[in-house]
Amino acid sequence: MEQLYIIKIGGNIIDDEAPLQKFLKAFAGIKRRKILVHGGGKLATDLASDLNVPQKMVEGRRITGAESLKIVTMVYAGSINKTIVAGLQANACNALGLCGADANLIRAEKRKAGTIDYGFVGDINESSVNAAAVNALLQIVDTLVIAPITHNGEGQLLNTNADTIASEIAKSMINYFDTELVFCFDKKGLLYDVEDENSVISEVNSKNVQSMKDQSVIHTGMLPKIDNALAAVQHGVKKVLMGHAGDLELLISGRAGTKIIN
Amino acid sequence: MEQLYIIKIGGNIIDDEAPLQKFLKAFAGIKRRKILVHGGGKLATDLASDLNVPQKMVEGRRITGAESLKIVTMVYAGSINKTIVAGLQANACNALGLCGADANLIRAEKRKAGTIDYGFVGDINESSVNAAAVNALLQIVDTLVIAPITHNGEGQLLNTNADTIASEIAKSMINYFDTELVFCFDKKGLLYDVEDENSVISEVNSKNVQSMKDQSVIHTGMLPKIDNALAAVQHGVKKVLMGHAGDLELLISGRAGTKIIN
Repeated sequence: MEQLYIIKIGGNIIDDEAPLQKFLKAFAGIKRRKILVHGGGKLATDLASDLNVPQKMVEGRRITGAESLKIVTMVYAGSINKTIVAGLQANACNALGLCGADANLIRAEKRKAGTIDYGFVGDINESSVNAAAVNALLQIVDTLVIAPITHNGEGQLLNTNADTIASEIAKSMINYFDTELVFCFDKKGLLYDVEDENSVISEVNSKNVQSMKDQSVIHTGMLPKIDNALAAVQHGVKKVLMGHAGDLELLISGRAGTKIIN
Repeated sequence: MEQLYIIKIGGNIIDDEAPLQKFLKAFAGIKRRKILVHGGGKLATDLASDLNVPQKMVEGRRITGAESLKIVTMVYAGSINKTIVAGLQANACNALGLCGADANLIRAEKRKAGTIDYGFVGDINESSVNAAAVNALLQIVDTLVIAPITHNGEGQLLNTNADTIASEIAKSMINYFDTELVFCFDKKGLLYDVEDENSVISEVNSKNVQSMKDQSVIHTGMLPKIDNALAAVQHGVKKVLMGHAGDLELLISGRAGTKIIN
């Protein structure tokens, strides 16, 4: 089967013009069909601050009231998504930017209010993704750029975690492509020592991860990411990679970062 | 050939929840392939005011500096575009929202600074539209929703007039579809007397328009719209309609508004 890369980038690279341009050039250089999923939390927080809309985060998740939903929709699906698309077009990469409401791509369920009411936050799993529509669009363009906004099918937009979107898209596409999932962030990979950028763990699999956990080798902050990555490979994603956004070429070619396999 | 509707709506309907929902329901009820082009100037001006970014309009066109470009991109391609898409999805209309950078759909040229420097404003003609891509996307979804932001192919987003985008798309699609172009605004059509909503001119063609102009029957404010509409029908668009956004069904079926034919 043909390869498909699903690449996630976080807010840290999006805010910063020079690293973003470098990343887009490297990304455009991947001559495969690909999907770029982006966050943008920091820019949303900046706009909320300029508009005097107080923001509250709980365990890294934004409590998304009506005003905050409008802000994240503008920032994620508007400025960030279209800036990335125009930047890729300038690098001869025919990109199409979308959110989960477009072409009914990702249908989410509004998170029920428990002890915490997250507001307009949507949860998804791999059956939330309209894989046939993703595949059809990838026959027309090289690249989809996806903003982390979904919908519930009843007219409500919902704020959804971008890491989760990337994972669920990767899992949903395994019948169409050999999918590889790449999480780009501001570390060189999964680290033995979070203070030491040179302590990258080059390969993790479901067998050695348990002993690493038992020996507390994996930093607790990394545990959700690694569990998420393992879940993806166990669902049929061929490979999950993690590393620095500035190292995309090295990462893709296996010369940097952490590789998670089954 | 199959029919294709290109429908333009202005800012007045977009700001207003109940009329917008009524319009989206009527629009979703058109069981044809269709393209909705929207503006949103008033909401952009409101956001600019909230952010203390001064706005300057010259002959109804926004002087678009870097900060204003960011604002219109957020408002048009972000909140308005995705609110419309989610609203259409809720009415069982499979819509996909885009701006002109997506799939390289509309490539514009930055307007050169003359006596007035409009900033990041892009001009287009019918050859600016990637008709093959529009057609390919319309084979996947029923409806495209287009925000009036274009790009120059070199990474620069540009603010482009939504009326012009609607006209140029209609002209560009005549080899694929029998295209009909509908301008929805806050009047019931082209009026003999701009003060009298019941004075709708039901039909205009290239023959009678000149005598109407000579007799000053057409209100000067309407002249650019009517010239634009005539140019479209002379370029092969089957029909151009103008009327109130609240009358979409009547308009489409020829029971309201003004019809412009060759």
